[in-house]
Amino acid sequence: MQGNVSVVFALLMGLVGLGFVVWQVRNVMAEDMGNQTMRNIASAIQEGASAFLNHEYLYLAVFVVVVGGVITLFLNVPTAICFVVGALASGAAGYLGMRIAVQANVRTAAAAERSLNDGLHVAFSSGSVMGMAVVSFSILGLTILYLLFDGNVSYVTGFGFGASSIALFARVGGGIFTKAADVGADLVGKVEQGIPEDDPRNPAVIADNVGDNVGDVAGMGADLFESYSGSIIAAATLGAVMANGSELAFVGLPFLIAAVGVIASILGTFLIKTEEDATQEELLSTLRNATWASSGIVLFLAIIMVLLAPGVSYLYWVIILIGLIAGNAIAFFTEYYTAFTYNPTKSIAKAAETGPATLLIQGLSVGMMSTLAPVLIIAFSILLSLKLGYRADGSLTAGLYGVALAGVGMLSTLGITLATDAYGPVADNAGGIAEMSELPGYVRERTDSLDSLGNTTAATGKGFAIGSAVLTALALMAAYVGAAEIESLNLLDGTMLPGILIGAVLPYVFAALTMTAVSKAAYAIVLEVRRQFAEIPGIMDGTGKPDYATCVAISTDNALRQMILPGALAVIAPLAVGYILGAEALAGMLVGSIASGFLLAVMMANSGGAWDNAKKWIETGEMGGKNSPAHKAAVIGDTVGDPFKDTSGPALNILIKLMSIVSLVFASTFGAGLF
Amino acid sequence: MQGNVSVVFALLMGLVGLGFVVWQVRNVMAEDMGNQTMRNIASAIQEGASAFLNHEYLYLAVFVVVVGGVITLFLNVPTAICFVVGALASGAAGYLGMRIAVQANVRTAAAAERSLNDGLHVAFSSGSVMGMAVVSFSILGLTILYLLFDGNVSYVTGFGFGASSIALFARVGGGIFTKAADVGADLVGKVEQGIPEDDPRNPAVIADNVGDNVGDVAGMGADLFESYSGSIIAAATLGAVMANGSELAFVGLPFLIAAVGVIASILGTFLIKTEEDATQEELLSTLRNATWASSGIVLFLAIIMVLLAPGVSYLYWVIILIGLIAGNAIAFFTEYYTAFTYNPTKSIAKAAETGPATLLIQGLSVGMMSTLAPVLIIAFSILLSLKLGYRADGSLTAGLYGVALAGVGMLSTLGITLATDAYGPVADNAGGIAEMSELPGYVRERTDSLDSLGNTTAATGKGFAIGSAVLTALALMAAYVGAAEIESLNLLDGTMLPGILIGAVLPYVFAALTMTAVSKAAYAIVLEVRRQFAEIPGIMDGTGKPDYATCVAISTDNALRQMILPGALAVIAPLAVGYILGAEALAGMLVGSIASGFLLAVMMANSGGAWDNAKKWIETGEMGGKNSPAHKAAVIGDTVGDPFKDTSGPALNILIKLMSIVSLVFASTFGAGLF
Repeated sequence: MQGNVSVVFALLMGLVGLGFVVWQVRNVMAEDMGNQTMRNIASAIQEGASAFLNHEYLYLAVFVVVVGGVITLFLNVPTAICFVVGALASGAAGYLGMRIAVQANVRTAAAAERSLNDGLHVAFSSGSVMGMAVVSFSILGLTILYLLFDGNVSYVTGFGFGASSIALFARVGGGIFTKAADVGADLVGKVEQGIPEDDPRNPAVIADNVGDNVGDVAGMGADLFESYSGSIIAAATLGAVMANGSELAFVGLPFLIAAVGVIASILGTFLIKTEEDATQEELLSTLRNATWASSGIVLFLAIIMVLLAPGVSYLYWVIILIGLIAGNAIAFFTEYYTAFTYNPTKSIAKAAETGPATLLIQGLSVGMMSTLAPVLIIAFSILLSLKLGYRADGSLTAGLYGVALAGVGMLSTLGITLATDAYGPVADNAGGIAEMSELPGYVRERTDSLDSLGNTTAATGKGFAIGSAVLTALALMAAYVGAAEIESLNLLDGTMLPGILIGAVLPYVFAALTMTAVSKAAYAIVLEVRRQFAEIPGIMDGTGKPDYATCVAISTDNALRQMILPGALAVIAPLAVGYILGAEALAGMLVGSIASGFLLAVMMANSGGAWDNAKKWIETGEMGGKNSPAHKAAVIGDTVGDPFKDTSGPALNILIKLMSIVSLVFASTFGAGLF
Repeated sequence: MQGNVSVVFALLMGLVGLGFVVWQVRNVMAEDMGNQTMRNIASAIQEGASAFLNHEYLYLAVFVVVVGGVITLFLNVPTAICFVVGALASGAAGYLGMRIAVQANVRTAAAAERSLNDGLHVAFSSGSVMGMAVVSFSILGLTILYLLFDGNVSYVTGFGFGASSIALFARVGGGIFTKAADVGADLVGKVEQGIPEDDPRNPAVIADNVGDNVGDVAGMGADLFESYSGSIIAAATLGAVMANGSELAFVGLPFLIAAVGVIASILGTFLIKTEEDATQEELLSTLRNATWASSGIVLFLAIIMVLLAPGVSYLYWVIILIGLIAGNAIAFFTEYYTAFTYNPTKSIAKAAETGPATLLIQGLSVGMMSTLAPVLIIAFSILLSLKLGYRADGSLTAGLYGVALAGVGMLSTLGITLATDAYGPVADNAGGIAEMSELPGYVRERTDSLDSLGNTTAATGKGFAIGSAVLTALALMAAYVGAAEIESLNLLDGTMLPGILIGAVLPYVFAALTMTAVSKAAYAIVLEVRRQFAEIPGIMDGTGKPDYATCVAISTDNALRQMILPGALAVIAPLAVGYILGAEALAGMLVGSIASGFLLAVMMANSGGAWDNAKKWIETGEMGGKNSPAHKAAVIGDTVGDPFKDTSGPALNILIKLMSIVSLVFASTFGAGLF
C-alpha cells in the first residue's frame, strides 16, 4: 500500500470516528437532566467551566497569533498554517470534551437514580466522546494537512507544535485552577469550618467541581491529543528519511495503525455494560475487557496492514505489540503503587500512626520507588524497538523509527483508553451534584462506586500518558537530530554534557513554578472563602447564599496569570539553548529533560495518587477511620499530593514533548551556538 | 617539573599536613574537660560513637575482603592492594575525625564557659583535625601508591574505589543512624511527652548526640575524602593519556595543586580568631575570610606551578580558578536557599500560616527551584573547562582533563572548608552537653551561637560536596570511557538511551531505600523509647535513669542492617549494566545517574535545610513563635527534611561517584553486552 492510500484510508476512519462522536453526543444529550435543583447546580458548573475555557482560549489566541507570526517570519507559511490548525484542533477537542462532560455529569446523577448500569452508560458515553474526539480530530487534521501539503512531513510538524502549545496551557492553567479551588475549598471548608466535602455552603464548591472538568477532562484530553499527534508525526518524519525504497510505506504505516485503532476503539466501546448488582471488581473487569479486546483487534488488523505494506518487515508488527504491552504494563504498576488494595499505599497509611511527617516521608519514598518499573519497561521497549527496527532494515533511522512506532502502538487504542479515563471526572461531578441536591443516599453510593472505579482507571490513564509521552518525546528528539543535521552526537564532545544537565534541571524548575502557582492561587481562594464566611450572614445555616461565581472568577484569573511563566519557559528554553549553545547542546538538553522529567512526573503522580488513596483507605475504617489522628495526617498528605498529581506531574509530560517539538520545528535554524 | 618530582613534593606536603594534624590533636586534648557530669555525658557519647563505628567497620571489613578478593580474581593484585589501602585510609580519616570530635565537644562546652573565643577555638581545632586528616591521608595514600606501582595510574584507581566504598557505607549507615535517633527522640520526647530537645530524661538523647558525630562528622569526612581522591585520580588518569609529550607534567599537576592546597589551608587556619563580643555576622566573616585567604594563596602558588610545568598552558590555571569560583558560587546559592535571612526560607515559614500541607508544598518547590543555580554554575564550568582544555591542547582528552582539574581546583582548599563544616556538629554536641549538665544559661547561648554558625557553614560545605561530586563523577566517567575503549558514544546509537534512563532512575531508588531505612530504624527507636517511658519508674521526674545504651544499640543495629541493600545496589548496578547491556550503555547510565542524582541531591538537601531553618526562624518569634500552630507545622516540615538533608541527599553524592569509579576500575572487563 502506498503512503497516500494509507493516509486517505486514515482520513476516512477519522470521519468514521467523527460520526461516532456525533452519535454519542446525541445519545448523551437525549438523557434526562433530573430535577430543577440538579439543573441549577449543573448550569452553575457549566457556566463556570465555559467562563474559564473562554478566558483561557482568549489568552491562547494571543499566543497562537504571536507564535504563528514568528513561524511565518523565521520558517515558512505552511508550517504556520499547520501550527494554527493544530492549536485549533486540540482546542476544539478539549472544548467539546469539556462541554459534554458538564452536560453528562447531571445526567449521570439522574441516570444513577434509576440504575447503576444507566449511570455507567451515560458517564462512559461522555468519556468516549472525549476519547474519540481527540483521536478523530488528530487524524483528520494530520491527514488533511499531509495531503494538502503534498506529503511534506516537515510542514506537518507545525500541527504537533500547535497541539503541544494548547496542551501545555490547558494542562497548566487547568491544573492550577482545579487544585487551587480544591485546596482552597478544603482548607477553609473542611479544616477551618468543619463542613464536609461538596457541601453547598462552601463558596468554593462550584469552583472545585468546575476544576474537575477544566483540569481533568480538558487538560488530560489536550495532553493525549498531543502525544497521539506527536507519535504519528515522529514516526512519519523518521519514516520519510528511510532509504530502502519503501519510504512511503513507512510514512503510511503510523497512519494505518491509527486508522485501525479507530475501528478497534469503537468496537470496544460497545462491549461496555454491567449487571445491576455489579461489584467494584466486575465494573473494573468490564472496562478492562473492553480495552483489551480493542488491543486484540488492533493487533489483528495491524498484522494484515504490515504484511500488505511493501517492503515493511513483520518485525514492525512486533514493535507495535511491544508498545501495547509496555503501555499496559506501566498502567499496571501505576495501579500497584497507588491503589489501596496493594502494599505500597497501605504502608503509607500505616506510617500515619506516627503522624504526618512519617506519612509524608513514606509517601515520597513510595513515589520514588515507583519510578523503577516504568523506567525499566520503557528502557527495554526502546532497546528492543531499536534493535528490531535496526534488524529489519540495517539503518539507524529504522531503529529510531521503531521507537516512534512503539509509541504509535501504545496509543493506538487511545479512543477507548482515554474514554475510561475521561469518564472519571464526570462520575465525580455526578456525585457532587447528587450531594448538593440532596438525592437519596443510594444515588450517592452508586456514583461513589463509579467514581472510585474512575480513580483506578485514571491511574491507568496516567500510566499511558507518561509512557507515551516519553516514547513520543524521544522519537521527536530523534527526528530533530535528523532535521538539524547534527553530525556528531558524542556524549563527551563539546556542549553535550552541559546540555544534558541544563535539560535535567528544567523539569524541576517547571514543577517548582507550577506548585508555587497552585499555592498562590489557592491562597487567593482561601482569603475569598474566609471573607464570604465572615461577611455573608446566614451562610452556615443555609439561609444565606454563598457567592460561587466570585470564587470561580478568582480561580480563573489566578490560574491564567500563573500559567504564563511556566508556559513561556517551555517554549523559550529550547530556543535559548539552541541559539546560545548550539544544536548539539539542544539534543543533550532534550535527552536530559526527557529522563529527568519522566522520573519526576512518575514520582509526583504516584506519590500524589498513593496519598489520596491512603486517605481513602483510612476512611474505610482502617487505622482508626475518619477523624482519627491518622486520618488527619492522611488529609495533610492528600493536600500535598494534590498539586503533585494533578498539576505539576501531568504538566511535565507536556513539557518534555513540547520542548522536543519546538526543537524539531525550528531545527533548521540552529547553528553551532556561541561557544 | 616532571611527574615524579611533583608527586614527591605532594608526598612531603602530605607529611606536613599530618604533622599539623598531630599538633592540633595535642592542642585539643590539652584542653580542660569540665566537671564530672559533663565528663560522664561525654563518655557516654564517646562509647556510643565508638561502638557504632567499631560495629560498622566490622561489616566493612567483610565487604573489603570480599571485594578485594573479587578484584584480585578478575583484575590484578596491585589494584586490590590499592583498594584495601584506600578503604583503610578513608576509614582511618573518618575514625580519627570522629574520635577527636567526641573529645572536643565536652572541651568546647567547658571552654565556652570561659569565653566565646575559647569555645570557637576548641571546636574549630577539632574540625581542622578532620579537614587536614582527610587531605593528608588522601595525598599520602595516593602518592605512596603511585610511587610504589611506578606511576601506573590505573592501579591507583583502586584507591578511589576503596575510599568510595567506605564513604558510601559511612554516609548511608551514619546517615540512617543519626536521623533514626533524631526522629525517634523527637517523636516520643518532644511530641508525645512534651519534654524539650536534649533533655536527659529522653532515653534516645545520647543516641541523638552520637548520631551527630557518626553521621555529620565521619560521614561527611568520608564523602569528601572520596571526592578529593577521586578528582586527583580522574585528572591523573586523563593526564596520563594526553599526547603532547608532557604527560608526566599533566599527571603531576593535580598532585601539585593538592600540595599547595595543604599549605594554603594550614595558613588559613591560623587566621581564625574572634573578639569576645563578636556578632553572628562577625563570626561568619572570620570563617569566610580565612577560607577566601586560603583560596587566594592556592591561586598564587598554583600559577607558579603551572608556569613551571613544561608544556602546561596557563589556561589550566584559569580552569583551577573557575573550579574555585564555582565551588564558592554554589555554596552561596545553597546558603541563599536555606538560610532564614533570605526570602526562600521565609516564604516557607509564611506558608505555615495555612498549615503543614502548604508549608510542605512550599518547601518542596523551594528545593526544586534551588537546583537551577548549581546546575547552571556546573554546566558553565564544564563548558568553559572543556573549551579551555581543548584550546590549550587541541585534543578531546585535554578538554576532559580540564573538567577534572576544575574539580581539583574546587577541592584544593578542602583542608579548611571541611574544617569549617566538621566544626558544626562539635558545637552542636557541646550545646547538648551544656544543656544536659545544666551549665549556666550564657554557656548555652554561646554554644548556640557557634552551632548556628555551624549550620551556615554546613550549608556551604554541602554546596562544595555536591559540586565537587558532580565534577569528579563526570571526570571519572570520562576516564572510564577512555579506559573501556568505547569507540562510539553516539547518543542515539544502540543502548545509550536505555542506559541514560536506567542511570537516571537509580538515584530515585537509592533515595527511596535510604528514606525507608530511616523510617524503619526510627520506628524501632520509637518503640524502645515508648517502652522505657512506660516501664522505667520515675523516668519523668528524674529519679529513674533511662537506658541510653539500648537506644544506641538499636540504632546501630538497624542502621547497619538497613545500609546493606542500598550499598549493594550502588556497587552492583554499574556491573550489571556493564555486563548485560555493554560498555556503551554503562557510559549512558553514568551520565544519567550523575544528572539525575545531582538534581535530587540538591533538591533534598536544600528542601531539608530550608525547612529546618524555617522552623528556627519561627522559633525566633516570627509567625507566632514557639508552640504556635505555625511552629507545629514547621516541626513537621523539619522532620520530613531530616532524612532528606542528612541521609538520602548526601548519600546521593557518593552514589554517583562510586558508580563512576566502579565502572573505571572494571572498565577493561566490559564487552558489548548481551543485546
